[in-house]
Amino acid sequence: MAGKVFFGVSMSLDGFIAPKSSEELMGKQWMELQGWVFPLRFFRENLKLGKGGEEGRDNDIARETFERTGVSVMGKRMFDAGERMWPEEAPFHTPVFVVTHEKRDPWERPGGTTFHFINDGIEAALDQARMAAGDRDVRIAGGGSTILEYLNAGLIDEFTIALSPVLFGAGVRLFEGIDASRVALEQINAEHSPKVTHLTYAVRQR
Amino acid sequence: MAGKVFFGVSMSLDGFIAPKSSEELMGKQWMELQGWVFPLRFFRENLKLGKGGEEGRDNDIARETFERTGVSVMGKRMFDAGERMWPEEAPFHTPVFVVTHEKRDPWERPGGTTFHFINDGIEAALDQARMAAGDRDVRIAGGGSTILEYLNAGLIDEFTIALSPVLFGAGVRLFEGIDASRVALEQINAEHSPKVTHLTYAVRQR
Repeated sequence: MAGKVFFGVSMSLDGFIAPKSSEELMGKQWMELQGWVFPLRFFRENLKLGKGGEEGRDNDIARETFERTGVSVMGKRMFDAGERMWPEEAPFHTPVFVVTHEKRDPWERPGGTTFHFINDGIEAALDQARMAAGDRDVRIAGGGSTILEYLNAGLIDEFTIALSPVLFGAGVRLFEGIDASRVALEQINAEHSPKVTHLTYAVRQR
Repeated sequence: MAGKVFFGVSMSLDGFIAPKSSEELMGKQWMELQGWVFPLRFFRENLKLGKGGEEGRDNDIARETFERTGVSVMGKRMFDAGERMWPEEAPFHTPVFVVTHEKRDPWERPGGTTFHFINDGIEAALDQARMAAGDRDVRIAGGGSTILEYLNAGLIDEFTIALSPVLFGAGVRLFEGIDASRVALEQINAEHSPKVTHLTYAVRQR
């Protein structure tokens, strides 16, 4: 059976993970939010952007997150945005389960990523993801509303937030709609580089 | 002249510093948010709650925050709530400048706290606070809207957030109304105890 179910996202200090519209997705705020990722050696290698890049704890964390992930699960909106933006060799290199109403055959990409389209809800998608993940972990990749559905359903074991030193003021909030009466947190770890603070929490039910 | 102008607050992971209504102020969520503070030796000594209490880094941070503060500045709502809740020996032990439309003579409390009521706005209050603080720092004590006014006006040098592992889902957001086009942050420090993560940022103008 699979290991843990987790998510990991970059969040602004005021709680946002994305701008309001996906047209702004590559805008200045989002670049600042994700600014710690782009120079990393692992990020550059994984997207085949070229040799070199920054090493150190941020890079180790990015690599460890990739290596623990046996399967990713994502919502339809994230898939749609990614389908336009990912290179041909999509950066997952594992099975990816897309929660969607769309019926579609599995879509196999070079480099080991195969997208499977699951039509019967988040729990069914997670069951299949667990089976496919072997002894590695299942990552709920996004977007925010999919993460929140899993969190409110009590299906997340732990999560890591890369808290970036940036304020958005508006956009998509990670925890908008959280069921605070059900979800309790235990702080597991915090470590920071000059660019970002990595915060890890275990999820408990109240 | 005074040192830095700073604020320090406890914030939930989803960005809240208080429940929606002040009636809930001593409720369960708020107790969880502030839960790292109550057992501290410094907190107990300062409010004369009794001997003993937890030592360690959280306690050192609470004590250092107190010791660096030469003057506190607060809004009228925080003062009104505090006037009902503080013990006779209010916990500041310094001058406190209250930004208000109310005209009122200085109110001196036992133990060195004197409240001064300033009627000509946040900048005038800060000017007087700086002069009174000597070489110590000025703390913008709260509430949230007063902190945000100072932050948007470019008058804060740095701030520390004690990020508690709790989700509110609703309430008063620290950064609601932030002018993200003006305020840039530089991450200065992050350290965590089992209960809370202390995050310190310097404020830069864009």
